[in-house]
Amino acid sequence: MGKRSFEILDVTLRDGSHAMKHAFTEEQVRETARGLDQAGVTYFEVTHGDGLGGSSLQYGLSAVDELKLIEAAVEECKSSQVSVLLLPGIGVKEDLQEAVKVGAKMVRVATHVTEADVAAQHIALGRELGLKTIGFLMMAHMAPVEKIVEQGKLFESYGAEVVYVTDSAGYLLPHEVKERIAALKNELTCEVGFHGHNNLSMAMANTIAAVQAGATYIDGSLRCLGAGSGNTQTEVMVAVLERLGYNTGIDLYKIMDVANDVVAKYMHRPQEVTGSSLIMGYSGVYSSFLLHTQAAAQKFGVDERDILVELGKMKAVGGQEDLIYDVAQRFALKKSSLV
Amino acid sequence: MGKRSFEILDVTLRDGSHAMKHAFTEEQVRETARGLDQAGVTYFEVTHGDGLGGSSLQYGLSAVDELKLIEAAVEECKSSQVSVLLLPGIGVKEDLQEAVKVGAKMVRVATHVTEADVAAQHIALGRELGLKTIGFLMMAHMAPVEKIVEQGKLFESYGAEVVYVTDSAGYLLPHEVKERIAALKNELTCEVGFHGHNNLSMAMANTIAAVQAGATYIDGSLRCLGAGSGNTQTEVMVAVLERLGYNTGIDLYKIMDVANDVVAKYMHRPQEVTGSSLIMGYSGVYSSFLLHTQAAAQKFGVDERDILVELGKMKAVGGQEDLIYDVAQRFALKKSSLV
Repeated sequence: MGKRSFEILDVTLRDGSHAMKHAFTEEQVRETARGLDQAGVTYFEVTHGDGLGGSSLQYGLSAVDELKLIEAAVEECKSSQVSVLLLPGIGVKEDLQEAVKVGAKMVRVATHVTEADVAAQHIALGRELGLKTIGFLMMAHMAPVEKIVEQGKLFESYGAEVVYVTDSAGYLLPHEVKERIAALKNELTCEVGFHGHNNLSMAMANTIAAVQAGATYIDGSLRCLGAGSGNTQTEVMVAVLERLGYNTGIDLYKIMDVANDVVAKYMHRPQEVTGSSLIMGYSGVYSSFLLHTQAAAQKFGVDERDILVELGKMKAVGGQEDLIYDVAQRFALKKSSLV
Repeated sequence: MGKRSFEILDVTLRDGSHAMKHAFTEEQVRETARGLDQAGVTYFEVTHGDGLGGSSLQYGLSAVDELKLIEAAVEECKSSQVSVLLLPGIGVKEDLQEAVKVGAKMVRVATHVTEADVAAQHIALGRELGLKTIGFLMMAHMAPVEKIVEQGKLFESYGAEVVYVTDSAGYLLPHEVKERIAALKNELTCEVGFHGHNNLSMAMANTIAAVQAGATYIDGSLRCLGAGSGNTQTEVMVAVLERLGYNTGIDLYKIMDVANDVVAKYMHRPQEVTGSSLIMGYSGVYSSFLLHTQAAAQKFGVDERDILVELGKMKAVGGQEDLIYDVAQRFALKKSSLV
């Protein structure tokens, strides 16, 4: 096997925060961090699921202060480096400065796929602080390729060293990943990354498609621990990439051990493709809409799937939750006029 | 959407038998069959996991006689037809005649990928009995493409109307599926099918690759209920194929309902990619080796994964379980000479 051609970035301790209801304990973080470090993972992420400052009534309160968790993870590492996620608006620049004080070495600044411009200062700050600085384009299925390129160029112009295509809803299929990664690779000079979710059972295939199209950063989580149906499964990704002849730099047995002996033991529930997660991936609607939709479906006596699929067609985005009730009402009227 | 270009064959009530420890109840079978029928599935399979006659001390005793389960499933169907699996040697011709008496309309005659010749009489009998008759080449990763073509031609010469590439160990990757399906498609005049397992998180991508290479029969199971990490997830496959513009002939919401309201409720455990199932997919060793390997690993104080990976390299097949102890002993000696 030749030179390593990409970095696998593990997000168990960040995207997994959603699946753990933001209740990671310090001991869980330490054990997981130690395992990731020993397996040879270069970077892994530790933050509230919604990034620095995410601990709130709106996004879910963390059981343990995230700075304490980041610090604990850093303490366990001999060679791995700890990344943090920052969503401008949820987290502020001071949060990043605090994270750096406890040892964070990478920041991923995340915005909706059409809103890279809100990240300019945060990306600049990441570079100033000497961090590896990454731009993270969420809900990447909601914009055409040209828009993604335009937004990626903005990230790059602010100083991002890597631009990510982030399939937050687990909606994308391999050919759609390939065209997005290839376009960024073609038009940008910085590196390109991919972050997948498994709502359509396609996270692994999408990640391989991303690597084949030139992505040099790919995300995974142990036992898929993450939002929705979870992420590309890190330990399986190592096995598949080895089978394809890539050098992952990660020890397969050691990464399997932390997945199965540590993470599997503290997971609240398995990461399956259920009815809800399938329909989120199918409709392309973000998971924050789910609970409101279920409430509206019950109130108006309509199928929640009809509402979600319609919201997907309307390309509803976070903040437009009011649309849910309009759509539900519309389906209820249609239903009553059919009776 | 145009004309339907393939049949989705659901194996929940057959491959799922492994995951249910062969303990399907008549009520579970009736409810599942009713759901599959209402969703518009043309064929689904009901048999012991190891086929007709599989109920035995060696393969696991069925809680309910399989003929009773087949009959119950047939009774629930308005339009779906029931398939049975037959492994020559485990099942005999009389078993098939009995299954036809209770209403089976399709038989899939399964052999190891290099042993199609043991199936000649069984396939001929299937045709004589007026069944849709299919040849099923198991452990298809263990033979090169030319061998698969040769064996497929044998099946076809006996009268098989469809020849399946069966990825029993969940080992294959999409490009490997594609070349196998394309070669059969090219060299045979009968139809070609694909049956996947998810041990490397690739069942869905492999199934799509098979369709794109010309497969016209594809298997799935609801909530992935099947051996190892389970199969391609039927209800997710319907969603993905719709997204790709295919007409599946299956109602997405109805197939989701039977998956989540019926099957998910009786599953013994979720279908995740665990340590054991990952290493089976990675090594390409069949699941019947697992328990013996774990016992040998413990006895000799070596890592079970080393044994399985070595067995995979040796291309060990069912019946060669004695090799397990030889390999375990070899690793133990190597380990002691290193100390």
